[in-house]
Amino acid sequence: MLLVIDGLGGLPSPETGETELETANTPNLDQLAAKGICGLIDPVSPGITPGSAPGHLALFGYNPVNFNTGRGILEAIGINFDLQQGDIAARGNFCTTDEMGLVTDRRAGRISTERCTELCQLLDGLVIDKVKILVRPVREHRFIVVFRGQSLIPDVSDSDPQQLGVAPMVITALCPEADRMAGIANQFIAQARTALAEHYPTNMVLLRGFSRLPQLPTMGEVYKLKPAAIASYPMYRGLARLVGMEILETGTSIEDEFMTLKQNYANYDFFFLHIKGTDSAGEDGDFDRKVRIIEQVDNALSELLSLEPDVIVVTGDHSTPALLRAHSWHPVPILLYSRWCRPDRVSQFSESACVSGGLGRFPATQIMPLAMANALKLNKFGA
Amino acid sequence: MLLVIDGLGGLPSPETGETELETANTPNLDQLAAKGICGLIDPVSPGITPGSAPGHLALFGYNPVNFNTGRGILEAIGINFDLQQGDIAARGNFCTTDEMGLVTDRRAGRISTERCTELCQLLDGLVIDKVKILVRPVREHRFIVVFRGQSLIPDVSDSDPQQLGVAPMVITALCPEADRMAGIANQFIAQARTALAEHYPTNMVLLRGFSRLPQLPTMGEVYKLKPAAIASYPMYRGLARLVGMEILETGTSIEDEFMTLKQNYANYDFFFLHIKGTDSAGEDGDFDRKVRIIEQVDNALSELLSLEPDVIVVTGDHSTPALLRAHSWHPVPILLYSRWCRPDRVSQFSESACVSGGLGRFPATQIMPLAMANALKLNKFGA
Repeated sequence: MLLVIDGLGGLPSPETGETELETANTPNLDQLAAKGICGLIDPVSPGITPGSAPGHLALFGYNPVNFNTGRGILEAIGINFDLQQGDIAARGNFCTTDEMGLVTDRRAGRISTERCTELCQLLDGLVIDKVKILVRPVREHRFIVVFRGQSLIPDVSDSDPQQLGVAPMVITALCPEADRMAGIANQFIAQARTALAEHYPTNMVLLRGFSRLPQLPTMGEVYKLKPAAIASYPMYRGLARLVGMEILETGTSIEDEFMTLKQNYANYDFFFLHIKGTDSAGEDGDFDRKVRIIEQVDNALSELLSLEPDVIVVTGDHSTPALLRAHSWHPVPILLYSRWCRPDRVSQFSESACVSGGLGRFPATQIMPLAMANALKLNKFGA
Repeated sequence: MLLVIDGLGGLPSPETGETELETANTPNLDQLAAKGICGLIDPVSPGITPGSAPGHLALFGYNPVNFNTGRGILEAIGINFDLQQGDIAARGNFCTTDEMGLVTDRRAGRISTERCTELCQLLDGLVIDKVKILVRPVREHRFIVVFRGQSLIPDVSDSDPQQLGVAPMVITALCPEADRMAGIANQFIAQARTALAEHYPTNMVLLRGFSRLPQLPTMGEVYKLKPAAIASYPMYRGLARLVGMEILETGTSIEDEFMTLKQNYANYDFFFLHIKGTDSAGEDGDFDRKVRIIEQVDNALSELLSLEPDVIVVTGDHSTPALLRAHSWHPVPILLYSRWCRPDRVSQFSESACVSGGLGRFPATQIMPLAMANALKLNKFGA
């Protein structure tokens, strides 16, 4: 049972000297920490602030530096787009250019999502050189373009110049095999410019982050598990699907998620349950809300404990201190409980207590082997 | 602000059970430890005793195993020789050979540095096949030879047999491209033998460690910093120059160094300040002197604190326990303070307290990413 409390780690409030997790009243987590073993994880590497994708891939046991997921693919996953093998996805912006063709606003004044949806419909469904082009809205000025066709490779440059006062860049192939992809992308942009000509201020598109699904071995292949994911936000369902988890339908509340766990408990041997609210509260700089959501999770935990999983891991994919209003590099508290863990002296689940935990400080990619060992699912290495 | 107290780590005195750092009265360091986060670093790898070059390269964020600096180059840096790109440097010994040409003393009775200087002048300035040969004294029987010319590569064997009763070895090319270098080195040795014939017991030279400046990306390139170095000893200035730091003129005392910091504080965004005395005291086996120098540094620290750097790192490049009279493999205490660090419960800067620090035990190469993160100078990895 892998319970991910997104952005769990924090920084101490200047008033109290206690972090969000330390402030929260968490009797269930503390009891689990007392029975289990604690520590701190680095999702990517000390000092490195992880995005959500690398943070989660590390928790699932995949080195996030080796398996970097491109921006286009992540955006597509984020809106739950049904990516197929071979699809090339790019992140797009509707933008504004002047009569010289120079970019004057990379976000076209942050148009509404409704307007974005209308414009996407205008561009969706083109076919260029037998490649079908699918365009879907994300939010505000953001959209994705998916190129679906034979033998496309994503090694092309961006058209987004990431600055104002210059023209969008011509997309170029970064290796000879990507010539066709570059050509099709440039034709798409030319046709988009024509289609948008009368739609000032959204009269141009900028594309970046061309990428395809990373070739990840599934968790079924790597760990011989039958894994399921419970997450109310699409992006985390998408990340779980990337590593071959089955996605369980669930509601939007924490209680819904734990209920889904209970209902499906007999049918899988690995669960990833994702709590989003802690990260959102941290990003909003709302210390108290983050505290309250941690307390809610702690409360819902009794549902999980009653199922008596062989191994319980509680951690986060990164820290999101309310003081920083952003993801951060600080290591994330982790607790592991199983019948076979070697308990340490930590009796409170908190950043400061985890410093002296028996797991020490270690890379997040080692969690899965550790959890598998505690489930007695690994063989001896060597004779 | 990277404050390196050379050879900082120690071993407990058998009388008191306390190390040099634990014995020293260090109110400023202790206060900083209480506000900051502590840990222990391994400069190269657990159990490996670092030389000064690997120790410092690791602190600057360069893997010292990948960027190994040849002996010749290190000796040249050590005497502040103005190396140019393409120069090949070798470490030399004046030695004694018998009438058969066999080595009878690899150090020619450890002649004085004055005598070494005279002999170097005898050999300096030769030109062989358009290669200019510069010879400079180091200390006692030690000198350096620098070969300056077109397209020389350092992949040649040593002439120093590292044992007695055998002849100096002919230098051979370790790859075909190094044939010219080997030939010129052998000609130099032949001419040196002739020039020294009447100078028994210093009648021969032994060369080893042919090397050139390693191709290190500068700290400016890697970290986009404008770094400056304050070090009273030439070798550390040389190491700082290797990674692109600007070298600030300073005096010989600790107070001079901190004054130089203050005077130049506005002009750079990274400072490396090096304290040599602790290492020298350790190598001399002088426990009490090492304690006193640590106390001097602690006292001077208030100057540094008044500048309010965003990030302060205090550590050493390796341990030099007075009991061992040498560099050692023991991990080195480190403290990091920034507005954004997550403080731990350590309130004393010492080897034993750092064991339970929030940074844990980690490779020294991770200090720079951590410091950069704490200065909010790193972007998020992945989406």
